[in-house]
Amino acid sequence: MSLKDKLEKITPLNAKAMEQARLRQDRLTKPAGSLGYLEELSIKISGIRGEITSGLEKKVVILCAADHGIVEEGVSAYPQEVTAQMVLNFARGNAAITVLARYLGAEVVVVDVGVKEDIDHPAVVTRKIRKGTANFAKGPAMSRKEAEKVVEIGIELAELEVEKGAGIIATGDMGIGNTTTSSAVISALTELPPRSVAGKGTGIDQEVFERKVKVIEKALALHRPSSNQPLDVLAKVGGLEIGALAGVMIGGAINRVPVVIDGLISSAAALLAYKLCPQVKDYLLPSHLSQEPGHRLVLSELGLEPFIHLDMRLGEGTGAVLSFSLIEASLKLLNEMATFEEAGVSEKNEQSVKV
Amino acid sequence: MSLKDKLEKITPLNAKAMEQARLRQDRLTKPAGSLGYLEELSIKISGIRGEITSGLEKKVVILCAADHGIVEEGVSAYPQEVTAQMVLNFARGNAAITVLARYLGAEVVVVDVGVKEDIDHPAVVTRKIRKGTANFAKGPAMSRKEAEKVVEIGIELAELEVEKGAGIIATGDMGIGNTTTSSAVISALTELPPRSVAGKGTGIDQEVFERKVKVIEKALALHRPSSNQPLDVLAKVGGLEIGALAGVMIGGAINRVPVVIDGLISSAAALLAYKLCPQVKDYLLPSHLSQEPGHRLVLSELGLEPFIHLDMRLGEGTGAVLSFSLIEASLKLLNEMATFEEAGVSEKNEQSVKV
Repeated sequence: MSLKDKLEKITPLNAKAMEQARLRQDRLTKPAGSLGYLEELSIKISGIRGEITSGLEKKVVILCAADHGIVEEGVSAYPQEVTAQMVLNFARGNAAITVLARYLGAEVVVVDVGVKEDIDHPAVVTRKIRKGTANFAKGPAMSRKEAEKVVEIGIELAELEVEKGAGIIATGDMGIGNTTTSSAVISALTELPPRSVAGKGTGIDQEVFERKVKVIEKALALHRPSSNQPLDVLAKVGGLEIGALAGVMIGGAINRVPVVIDGLISSAAALLAYKLCPQVKDYLLPSHLSQEPGHRLVLSELGLEPFIHLDMRLGEGTGAVLSFSLIEASLKLLNEMATFEEAGVSEKNEQSVKV
Repeated sequence: MSLKDKLEKITPLNAKAMEQARLRQDRLTKPAGSLGYLEELSIKISGIRGEITSGLEKKVVILCAADHGIVEEGVSAYPQEVTAQMVLNFARGNAAITVLARYLGAEVVVVDVGVKEDIDHPAVVTRKIRKGTANFAKGPAMSRKEAEKVVEIGIELAELEVEKGAGIIATGDMGIGNTTTSSAVISALTELPPRSVAGKGTGIDQEVFERKVKVIEKALALHRPSSNQPLDVLAKVGGLEIGALAGVMIGGAINRVPVVIDGLISSAAALLAYKLCPQVKDYLLPSHLSQEPGHRLVLSELGLEPFIHLDMRLGEGTGAVLSFSLIEASLKLLNEMATFEEAGVSEKNEQSVKV
């Protein structure tokens, strides 16, 4: 089945389930609307799942790792070998995302979609498209065919996890240099200037930041990717983990499972997925707000409001996985709270007040 | 022991434990500072507990309920009997706070410190000071002696829970009319005008909001409470649950257990506790940002930055209990992540970049 055929399998949210959830929220023993965005979350997830659900079942983080040729331009604070080293750190369960997932009862699926070095570890899934992208300051990051292929691999990854029982998927990334790549993708897709999109990544100084902005500006001038052709943008200035995560989001949408956006890299993937099929947006949930300017720009473009403000800038899916407990809490509230009738609690004064 | 003597038992945070935690954070496999406020949380809790701790042990919500004479002035959207009805809803485990606490593995201790009706339920602790406050539009809400007594009861409540193993305490409230009372307390303690402090509470319309503001303005003009005399403010325009929660915060600080601020009512209590003893602030943690303007004003006064933005306005401790998983996650990260050395991950480029 072609990517186009797969995208057509995404259908609208279930309006009836959402209406039922909304009606129930209004009958629960609390002032209407007082649970704020938790109410909206429970309603949206009901629409995604097609019914009022009592929990998230199995929670999964799909973490895609890849290398970036653009690091040759000196845009990152860390050497490239850190990508592979961190993948092994994930595999051993000692990185931030694996600590968080263990604590929150989620499973981490680590996937090598394009790490430069070969990684041989039973806890790492190998779906390597190529050994890192090419330096997009000099030529396209990957071929158009590779771009399409990596998105399809992401769809397959999501489908496999849904088959194994995933009720929610968080998107994680690893790839030295990938804030530069993500900023380029976001800049290309939004037509916003690189200077307003790019941030300090893992902690670069002002000099490196200036270089990062110029590298993106030059690359966009060189390739002239069209904002309406997401696969073209991905091929020219994208990254393999970004394409794969866009696929994970599409795969979640096809299978009616909510997918949680993490930080900058994950939001670049979300924007790609959205440009491939706007309906995908209905299946995406925000989580935290990172320090990267491009992150907020994308969430705003997608109409999603992040609800965790911890000033994080780590990636790996760390912000997304932290949202699992808040998101599942919204379902517990919808299902387990008593209604006014059940609890024998008086409702709002008809005249709004007693005088 | 007098309240003054108890306040003197609060000591500074353990600087050595905080330094150890900070040094460890800087060695973990992540760019320094990339876990944002999660790093600060883990360092602060290490300072509170006096050592690097691996978790929060038992998590408790102390929920204090009381009635407010000020409802006679027509300031609330709900009838007064809802206070007692909701206390029973908590006791039966069917309210928002009890659903959330169950999901997040926390215990809710429901305390009647001044509900108008008598409540007879095994799951409700009775420490009733009086059957609701007097209408502070006409006279003082309670006597100075009652104000001191209710704070002391709060301290006892916290101490009892610490003895039973609490490693963190969230503060919850129930009391129809208590956003009016809290706004009056905050306005009196900050000397900010009631109009900039008060909000729409459980969902009042503009007409009732105007009345609420005028009621507070008149009461402050009538009583002229001094911003430097917190017990005077509590007695004149306060509420019994607000005084008790201030005591819970003081009790947490005395016993070196972090106490989490919830929404408006809880923040009024935090400001009271802070005015009684500024050192208390070091033992307080923020959680969510509610819709009430006074909530943000107090957190800003205390230098605390809320990290959950769900647009909630329910109280009961719901925002505070949601923070438990994020706060405990910060400790898991500090304890369980590998350091660069342990994981064999390369560190930041010395020259900041490779060129």
